[in-house]
Amino acid sequence: CCRSPAWDRPSRPPPSPLQPPGRPLAPCRSFSNNKIQVELDESSGVAMMKFKSPPVNSLSLELLTEFSISLEKLENNRACRGVIITSAVPKIFSSGLDITEMCGKSMEHYTEFWRAVQEMWLRLYGSSMVTVAAINGSSPAGGCLVALSCDYRIMAENPKFSIGLNEAQLGIVAPFWFKDTFVNVVGHRIAERSLQMGSLHPAPEAHRLGLVDELVPEEKLMEKAAAVMAQWLALPDHARQLTKTMMRKAVLDRLVAHREEDIKNFITFISKESIQKSLRMYMEMLKKRKS
Amino acid sequence: CCRSPAWDRPSRPPPSPLQPPGRPLAPCRSFSNNKIQVELDESSGVAMMKFKSPPVNSLSLELLTEFSISLEKLENNRACRGVIITSAVPKIFSSGLDITEMCGKSMEHYTEFWRAVQEMWLRLYGSSMVTVAAINGSSPAGGCLVALSCDYRIMAENPKFSIGLNEAQLGIVAPFWFKDTFVNVVGHRIAERSLQMGSLHPAPEAHRLGLVDELVPEEKLMEKAAAVMAQWLALPDHARQLTKTMMRKAVLDRLVAHREEDIKNFITFISKESIQKSLRMYMEMLKKRKS
Amino acid sequence: CCRSPAWDRPSRPPPSPLQPPGRPLAPCRSFSNNKIQVELDESSGVAMMKFKSPPVNSLSLELLTEFSISLEKLENNRACRGVIITSAVPKIFSSGLDITEMCGKSMEHYTEFWRAVQEMWLRLYGSSMVTVAAINGSSPAGGCLVALSCDYRIMAENPKFSIGLNEAQLGIVAPFWFKDTFVNVVGHRIAERSLQMGSLHPAPEAHRLGLVDELVPEEKLMEKAAAVMAQWLALPDHARQLTKTMMRKAVLDRLVAHREEDIKNFITFISKESIQKSLRMYMEMLKKRKS
Repeated sequence: CCRSPAWDRPSRPPPSPLQPPGRPLAPCRSFSNNKIQVELDESSGVAMMKFKSPPVNSLSLELLTEFSISLEKLENNRACRGVIITSAVPKIFSSGLDITEMCGKSMEHYTEFWRAVQEMWLRLYGSSMVTVAAINGSSPAGGCLVALSCDYRIMAENPKFSIGLNEAQLGIVAPFWFKDTFVNVVGHRIAERSLQMGSLHPAPEAHRLGLVDELVPEEKLMEKAAAVMAQWLALPDHARQLTKTMMRKAVLDRLVAHREEDIKNFITFISKESIQKSLRMYMEMLKKRKS
Repeated sequence: CCRSPAWDRPSRPPPSPLQPPGRPLAPCRSFSNNKIQVELDESSGVAMMKFKSPPVNSLSLELLTEFSISLEKLENNRACRGVIITSAVPKIFSSGLDITEMCGKSMEHYTEFWRAVQEMWLRLYGSSMVTVAAINGSSPAGGCLVALSCDYRIMAENPKFSIGLNEAQLGIVAPFWFKDTFVNVVGHRIAERSLQMGSLHPAPEAHRLGLVDELVPEEKLMEKAAAVMAQWLALPDHARQLTKTMMRKAVLDRLVAHREEDIKNFITFISKESIQKSLRMYMEMLKKRKS
Repeated sequence: CCRSPAWDRPSRPPPSPLQPPGRPLAPCRSFSNNKIQVELDESSGVAMMKFKSPPVNSLSLELLTEFSISLEKLENNRACRGVIITSAVPKIFSSGLDITEMCGKSMEHYTEFWRAVQEMWLRLYGSSMVTVAAINGSSPAGGCLVALSCDYRIMAENPKFSIGLNEAQLGIVAPFWFKDTFVNVVGHRIAERSLQMGSLHPAPEAHRLGLVDELVPEEKLMEKAAAVMAQWLALPDHARQLTKTMMRKAVLDRLVAHREEDIKNFITFISKESIQKSLRMYMEMLKKRKS
């Protein structure tokens, strides 16, 4: 059975960015890293990818790197045609970018971190596999970006779970490619208001706005995700992949063309004392909330 | 009465592509070709254009050529201000591009065929006349493109009739200008999902998605189309035409700028053995279904 | 109390177009010009801007100039973070561009007028303040543009009040940047139809189309506008401003890049005898309606 986890950390050299699929790796049924668990069901061609970085699945440098490597491994595995992304941590899908990576660190660290965020998005938004987000908890900021980058979003219909690009609430600005991804899903008007207000939308509102495609009772979430995936996989891969590329290429190309500039912007912004202060205050608040 | 069909095939040299209106032709009340019947009511300024190419109004090279010529004739006739496009064949609006034109033919034939598809769309999407689609049957693929290219879409509310750009179901990819036309109507998110899955939407769903503007009982379809046309024709032509051009120019210009490249892409794609095989299998299936 | 009007007409040289904020002017609690009354509540940071140019708040050269100057004054006043725009005239928000400015005047006048229209839009759509339209009456054409350029639109739910870019009804064409602003709010499909037909949408329909964000009973309009403004002002300014710029820059830049060309187009169009005739007839009709 493919459910038994195997600790199969990649020993190959790090993947070159956006290498096209082609040379299939040795088949791997399931593998796990420190932060993400991956199980591939070769009979259906569907991989289950679970964030398991408690307490809140922060997108740390380590998690992002594992995420990109896992996506690349699956992309290169011909047995895999689709990925369901979900969380192994209760009540949270992902809390978004790890603020500790953006606070009090060196320029080199900021550069490495931001490049990893870009890399993850380029791989996920540009994936030739069918990607379904099974959003089983709250999903602010970068967590929302992960969901927005999939082909289809199903969310547990718990109104306590919310989702949105709430960067503005923290006094920071979502980068242009977060914005482009958001606009492609909800349109300009909803994106403009939601981004300016840094809104976190409870599941029912997120559904009304089109931010998620479907709500289901929490206990039916994985079953539904599998059913939706089966529908998508009933289509021939090649035409679907070309169609997906056609729809997403303009937005992907925009980041590829401005990648270094985007890193510079991030570093300039994050290095400001006022921003560092906001982030420190935010972290303090999170610590107090916990205790 | 303008209802009596006259066989008035154009004897003029073939029209230069996208020639601007200006020199009005001799007035023609109604004319018919092999595949399309056109009746112009000079009192209202409205032409009725009916596909009559049984069994399913396939967009063959012949039909497409007649379509473009008919549009040009009406465009150049000052007595004509609007066109209602519908089908004379029960249960089908148009089944889309004729697959026999894309299967086992020469490069020259593919080139000629694809140029005719482009020409039809450039004339219809860029028409200065008011164009209303009265969709009285199913309308997959190229049939859907015809409807999407009109100013307004009314569909018979029969849930057995469906509409969509279902190319991906056949293993082929809708060209970028099909996609652009679709996105302009339903927005990016709905287009992305519908195109990837090659969805055929039953009339009620098509209405919910905004793919068609209105549903009416089948027996009221033509009456409603005439009423909608009258509303549009209540506006002064010139400002409406300039406004339409402003809305559609970017997407029209994109094909004009990449027309030869688009033909090459089509030929390369359609010439692949795997694609030819898919199309042959699809035609076999259609034949079996008939018998 | 900041409600007492002070006649504080600017004695400084006219503002250079789009000068960035920075040098705060001397604080002003409230000021009024001939056509617009402005009251700033320094405790909340919210200015109330009221069109008071009876009978219908036509956007004359004088009103437009006062509008731009008022916006600049508030933009440069650090005590001001948000503006509520509304009308002091019953039943009308603004009737749009003043037709008398476009009829029987010199080329120089047309140039000056059109530049003032552009200037107003560049300042309003690009404002770093939170802008809320409290639409307490009908709002055709240029009046609709003012509302569309705000961050949020609340309309009195009176079905007798209507809003829309109805230029096509008058035989004229909304400029491309009116269209871009409209598309950003309602999307391409709704904009295409509404602009071609020159539709004026009654308040409930405007709400359904997304043209306005909210309807409230007329007597609650100002209360609601203040509540919405307070929500927006709960956000830190800097991130919200950068986000707004990111969303609107492409459309603003397009006019900045084509400003002189746009003026020329306007003059060429408006100088046509056929257009002058339409406008004269329209003014005659308005006069007759009044008496």
